[in-house]
Amino acid sequence: MFSIGQLDRIIDQALAEDANGGDLTSEATVDAGTLARAVAVARQDLVVCGGPVFARVFERVDRDVGIRLAAPEGARAKNGDELFVIEGRARALLVGERTALNFAQRLSGIATLAAAFVQAIPPGSKAVIVDTRKTTPGLRALERYAVRTGGAKNHRNDLTSAVFIKDNHIVAAGGIERAVARARAYAPHTSRIEIEVQTLDELDIALRAGADVVLLDNFDVDTLSIAVALARGRAVLEASGGVTLDKVEAIANTGVDVISVGALTHSAPAADIGLDLELLS
Amino acid sequence: MFSIGQLDRIIDQALAEDANGGDLTSEATVDAGTLARAVAVARQDLVVCGGPVFARVFERVDRDVGIRLAAPEGARAKNGDELFVIEGRARALLVGERTALNFAQRLSGIATLAAAFVQAIPPGSKAVIVDTRKTTPGLRALERYAVRTGGAKNHRNDLTSAVFIKDNHIVAAGGIERAVARARAYAPHTSRIEIEVQTLDELDIALRAGADVVLLDNFDVDTLSIAVALARGRAVLEASGGVTLDKVEAIANTGVDVISVGALTHSAPAADIGLDLELLS
Amino acid sequence: MFSIGQLDRIIDQALAEDANGGDLTSEATVDAGTLARAVAVARQDLVVCGGPVFARVFERVDRDVGIRLAAPEGARAKNGDELFVIEGRARALLVGERTALNFAQRLSGIATLAAAFVQAIPPGSKAVIVDTRKTTPGLRALERYAVRTGGAKNHRNDLTSAVFIKDNHIVAAGGIERAVARARAYAPHTSRIEIEVQTLDELDIALRAGADVVLLDNFDVDTLSIAVALARGRAVLEASGGVTLDKVEAIANTGVDVISVGALTHSAPAADIGLDLELLS
Amino acid sequence: MFSIGQLDRIIDQALAEDANGGDLTSEATVDAGTLARAVAVARQDLVVCGGPVFARVFERVDRDVGIRLAAPEGARAKNGDELFVIEGRARALLVGERTALNFAQRLSGIATLAAAFVQAIPPGSKAVIVDTRKTTPGLRALERYAVRTGGAKNHRNDLTSAVFIKDNHIVAAGGIERAVARARAYAPHTSRIEIEVQTLDELDIALRAGADVVLLDNFDVDTLSIAVALARGRAVLEASGGVTLDKVEAIANTGVDVISVGALTHSAPAADIGLDLELLS
Amino acid sequence: MFSIGQLDRIIDQALAEDANGGDLTSEATVDAGTLARAVAVARQDLVVCGGPVFARVFERVDRDVGIRLAAPEGARAKNGDELFVIEGRARALLVGERTALNFAQRLSGIATLAAAFVQAIPPGSKAVIVDTRKTTPGLRALERYAVRTGGAKNHRNDLTSAVFIKDNHIVAAGGIERAVARARAYAPHTSRIEIEVQTLDELDIALRAGADVVLLDNFDVDTLSIAVALARGRAVLEASGGVTLDKVEAIANTGVDVISVGALTHSAPAADIGLDLELLS
Amino acid sequence: MFSIGQLDRIIDQALAEDANGGDLTSEATVDAGTLARAVAVARQDLVVCGGPVFARVFERVDRDVGIRLAAPEGARAKNGDELFVIEGRARALLVGERTALNFAQRLSGIATLAAAFVQAIPPGSKAVIVDTRKTTPGLRALERYAVRTGGAKNHRNDLTSAVFIKDNHIVAAGGIERAVARARAYAPHTSRIEIEVQTLDELDIALRAGADVVLLDNFDVDTLSIAVALARGRAVLEASGGVTLDKVEAIANTGVDVISVGALTHSAPAADIGLDLELLS
Repeated sequence: MFSIGQLDRIIDQALAEDANGGDLTSEATVDAGTLARAVAVARQDLVVCGGPVFARVFERVDRDVGIRLAAPEGARAKNGDELFVIEGRARALLVGERTALNFAQRLSGIATLAAAFVQAIPPGSKAVIVDTRKTTPGLRALERYAVRTGGAKNHRNDLTSAVFIKDNHIVAAGGIERAVARARAYAPHTSRIEIEVQTLDELDIALRAGADVVLLDNFDVDTLSIAVALARGRAVLEASGGVTLDKVEAIANTGVDVISVGALTHSAPAADIGLDLELLS
Repeated sequence: MFSIGQLDRIIDQALAEDANGGDLTSEATVDAGTLARAVAVARQDLVVCGGPVFARVFERVDRDVGIRLAAPEGARAKNGDELFVIEGRARALLVGERTALNFAQRLSGIATLAAAFVQAIPPGSKAVIVDTRKTTPGLRALERYAVRTGGAKNHRNDLTSAVFIKDNHIVAAGGIERAVARARAYAPHTSRIEIEVQTLDELDIALRAGADVVLLDNFDVDTLSIAVALARGRAVLEASGGVTLDKVEAIANTGVDVISVGALTHSAPAADIGLDLELLS
Repeated sequence: MFSIGQLDRIIDQALAEDANGGDLTSEATVDAGTLARAVAVARQDLVVCGGPVFARVFERVDRDVGIRLAAPEGARAKNGDELFVIEGRARALLVGERTALNFAQRLSGIATLAAAFVQAIPPGSKAVIVDTRKTTPGLRALERYAVRTGGAKNHRNDLTSAVFIKDNHIVAAGGIERAVARARAYAPHTSRIEIEVQTLDELDIALRAGADVVLLDNFDVDTLSIAVALARGRAVLEASGGVTLDKVEAIANTGVDVISVGALTHSAPAADIGLDLELLS
Repeated sequence: MFSIGQLDRIIDQALAEDANGGDLTSEATVDAGTLARAVAVARQDLVVCGGPVFARVFERVDRDVGIRLAAPEGARAKNGDELFVIEGRARALLVGERTALNFAQRLSGIATLAAAFVQAIPPGSKAVIVDTRKTTPGLRALERYAVRTGGAKNHRNDLTSAVFIKDNHIVAAGGIERAVARARAYAPHTSRIEIEVQTLDELDIALRAGADVVLLDNFDVDTLSIAVALARGRAVLEASGGVTLDKVEAIANTGVDVISVGALTHSAPAADIGLDLELLS
Repeated sequence: MFSIGQLDRIIDQALAEDANGGDLTSEATVDAGTLARAVAVARQDLVVCGGPVFARVFERVDRDVGIRLAAPEGARAKNGDELFVIEGRARALLVGERTALNFAQRLSGIATLAAAFVQAIPPGSKAVIVDTRKTTPGLRALERYAVRTGGAKNHRNDLTSAVFIKDNHIVAAGGIERAVARARAYAPHTSRIEIEVQTLDELDIALRAGADVVLLDNFDVDTLSIAVALARGRAVLEASGGVTLDKVEAIANTGVDVISVGALTHSAPAADIGLDLELLS
Repeated sequence: MFSIGQLDRIIDQALAEDANGGDLTSEATVDAGTLARAVAVARQDLVVCGGPVFARVFERVDRDVGIRLAAPEGARAKNGDELFVIEGRARALLVGERTALNFAQRLSGIATLAAAFVQAIPPGSKAVIVDTRKTTPGLRALERYAVRTGGAKNHRNDLTSAVFIKDNHIVAAGGIERAVARARAYAPHTSRIEIEVQTLDELDIALRAGADVVLLDNFDVDTLSIAVALARGRAVLEASGGVTLDKVEAIANTGVDVISVGALTHSAPAADIGLDLELLS
């Protein structure tokens, strides 16, 4: 999933925010030799995500821990289900608790919201839900993973993964045709070219310019349907802008290929996960 | 506010996620010499937060930018208000756009939610709203700043800032009295000792043990009132657990000193902020 | 071009390899107040690349330097031409000299080699020269920039930029059709799908499977021509494998779209650039 | 050889360039549980170097790999020889493949070139081949190791390891005598003092000034011989400047002690190494 | 004690200062396969501190080492006692030797000095010895741990752990009352408020302003006694300024609660520890 | 002196230990707009060292500061002398105060101790005082600079700067002759070879083996004199082991070339420097 250095860098920084001076409370109240079992428990229905990250937090506090991921990534857990089990020194479990939960709650929150969007796609529709680059600074790789864990797909990873031409690029390039042509000449032959349009007229120009993907920005459902008819499969069509759960079905039914949802990563509420800790000695 | 190294480390990592390979689209469609003005505009009513971070993103892309923070931190902006203005090379503005907005939307989202909680405190109540350590991994300092910008206060910063004894600590220490005593003996003389209790009986023991702060975990409003009467000011009382906007007034009216709200940082929806870009040459 | 944090991280590590303990020789033999002018001079004909990196090295040694990039990036310089001029404390110039030259020689070496390959494309051919991911660990962004500076193009940036299916992926997926189908289902809608084939039969299958790009691995010139005829524009065709300068024209004449050359980055000899230093005081 | 932190820092950065977003292709086409064996195979005759680095790349992708270095460092491998064998999850092997090869090809390329230069020293000559500080930014320690693996020796490691006085230092110090004297007074008593000279007259002055090592810059073979006679062992003599393989024998026969070759690290072509991957399940 | 990432970052930087280029001497004189046992031995009476850090240094050089901490942290060792034993490759032990000793000598030096101060507290006194923030840049967490290991206590960890109002804050705030009031309003409810006073009058004001802790700056012993009488337990009293070992008893006898000693961390002489190395093969 | 990246890395880590969460006290009690002047003042006689580091700390807190280094590096300051003056926002000055002083006190402490050792060398002696590698982990470059600022010299910088053969190396190599020979064959031609001896007999062997430098370990003064007579200038002689201020003159008078003193860096007491802060607005 993630390389070790990548994951440890993120986790170590999170631990540094919380525990660089140690943990006054555990050092004061828990003997160094006390062992314990910590069980992460779902406090709501959720889609499980982040178990390996959760576990790795404790390994970065103290190598001497045992780990069992009771719920696989992507599973649907019910309120009360056991998710992850860690055994080791009680102090280490208490030091890592908050950081580990902060990761798991965020990632499961995203996966749970992504799954809800995916479920809102009506049967028979080919539309897929995708995320955006509106991710939390520092956590993009983890959050894109959570989106996939919830069953949705990813948009381009970064500014180098593909071309995505917006209105300002069009103005700067001197029109849609020139923008697409300049992009084709510049971009790697492995990259598709996506362009954002505001009107059906612009869509028409974009299609004729040879765009591979067209983002239909804030089109209403009727206009989306016209756009689909207009495009006749010549480009992948992406509906975007203010997509909420209750609108997904209608948008999907227009026949668009892709529905992008910024809220998946920028506004997913944390999933409620608690940590039950039991002393073993 | 933040030291330069601290802020740049966070921003540089965010830029690395998005722009380490450059920006295919801008390089292809915008001439290197083209200048532009980018204006961050509120797309909803919000409490402004993160202007200096937003601006610093562009300075880390290209030192040659001019910055004007039209809206001061903590100001209430209306939908449509101009917030921050950046001028410089169009390519640099386009490279930094998404990263800068990701910061500003998150921080303004937190400030806006914090302000809503603070406003829900009824006049005459001395209760204060505080955050928790349920922050985004890597962004704690920024998010705590956003909480303050919204008018709320911070809880302890990290595991070394103060003692906070929870149920597992109590079990490990052998009871509330022993836990408080061990903490008093161990912790710096500059740290208060907070303890979490589940019942009024535990509150009574905690008060007699000399705890400075008592967290009343998931107490209903009536029990909170009894707790306040019982404590008679001998300790700071903190109400916590499932605090939502509509419950704040009733909780505050019980007379507790502090109301802690995890959602301020773990579930604040991003504030909607757009970037209008105008080419200058 | 590069964000400041990205460039400074690379430069600071290079300086740390050479100068963390200071510079015995300059400290011993040059007075602290002595000023000097350093001029980077081409010692061979070359394509200029890396001026901003060269200059930034000195700024990271000592902020108090003046910089003039006499030769623009991508220019063809003759043996003896002045390229970059730095003025400042003589000690700082001597400390940064080797590190700055190490960057400039490598990047100009790559740009020069890339330009030679581009020039070998015969007039009228639409074929483009591209690099590969065979870059120096730690310097990919700089080296890809040097390739572009030399007039060639980049292949995909990293493992997330596009799909590139090789023989082992095909075996693991259970054949070309399944591999392409699985990739289409998984990859972002902004990514093209490239597949490597060893034979014309595999090319035929790949085309029918809907691959966007097909890499023809070590095809001889005659077979490349047949491949072009077979494909009839249904996919971008990339010739790869042992491409040397003397073969480029023949390969381009087959009609392939792309010719990828690993040597651009893994075996470009350093361009010879010297630093003439003149004391000013 | 290298400390763990040093090696992991270099490797993790290389992996970050390629795999921070994951690997679209392997994730799409290879099942998570598939196991494989990857064998690095020489595609040309070469001197083996970088096996431990190659292997460590895979350990940083996924701890669960088995490693066998079939060819020891410094061994002469024939085209077709198996070098290193890695077993583990197929996805991990595919993620690490390019990065691991980029290291091994570069290091083996340097070792192979260094060995060629060493072999060009005629029997009976005491001359040794050494590298320079013209190394790849970020990879100095690895490249110096490769030079040693190829049988050559290292020059000074960095600006603090020894004194090396060049023409500008001489001018700044006010002549050769003063430069050597200032260096002797300043440098640690553990450092030798090397000085670069352009003429036999300067050599004479340098010898009388007590330089420990004298670099004879671009001396032709006849002048080198005179220099050796002149020095009569009073200093170590280093021949430098434009040393190519075909000139080594003649230079060595002049009796100089050291021949330094910048090309060992700045222009060694990558050794051709392939990775054969076989699925195990 | 310390999280792995935190400790490794400090150790890796220390190793980078000494061993990034390898170790000329060991590589030259010790065969790669030679095994050895290294025993850290006290060369003076001391309080043991830093064993886990000492051991970890060798693990970061070479994973293949065996470790035995013969003396537990905080134990009193006599001159000649064996402290820590490491077995492994002789080269690895020699590479890590100086760095490991630099840590152990510093930490044991601090623990030894702290223990001396603690022992100087007369029986029956409740006064505790605490450190200050005058720690070595980069080593605060380790040095605070050494202070605790010596039996003393820590002051606040950092600028966010508690409020500590000094003279300039008082001036800026407009007097002691206002400073305390502003601090109470701003600081987390988990933080105590400490204030520094120069006179008994200021102490009186500080007590009435409700300060939790008062630092009595450079009070002589008689004035300290008056201060204790004046305070009557309303605040924790901290004596500070020029506290040397011979003054501790008299200061403690005044009845102050806390005696802070900057010298614990800024001027503790290194404890003398040697490393005896025995070759095993 | 130091490159910017090197210095900022050290300073930023120090600031992170103290101020990552901000500064409760200054934020609470000092208005954001308040300006101030901070003057570092010697509280004892000392040799000034660390002014540029002191100043840079404040620049890393807030770019908007003015700096004046009233006392040059290496100057002898009297108790009460003004050393460095910083003007800027009062909050920034208070945030940086402790960290800046921690650097300046340590570096001036080392410079002051080094100067005392240098002064103890009797007139007419050629002996020089040098430091060792017993430096504070993470601060070697700064501490070696402080040693030079105090007028002493540096020993080798790290394990790659020169060869230094100790008893274990001798045993592993099979005797002094073989150790020196192996070192000569392996080490760069720019490195001297130092060897540690315990007896005059060993010294004799070392001299005949051609060692460049011989460390005389814990020789008494009489034996040092014999050693000097024995060596007759064939090698640099370094006296080492338990060198205290009162022994320096006698040791120097034996005629040894170098006297190395570990205490310069591992046990120098901090110089007392205070910061007087005056509000400007």
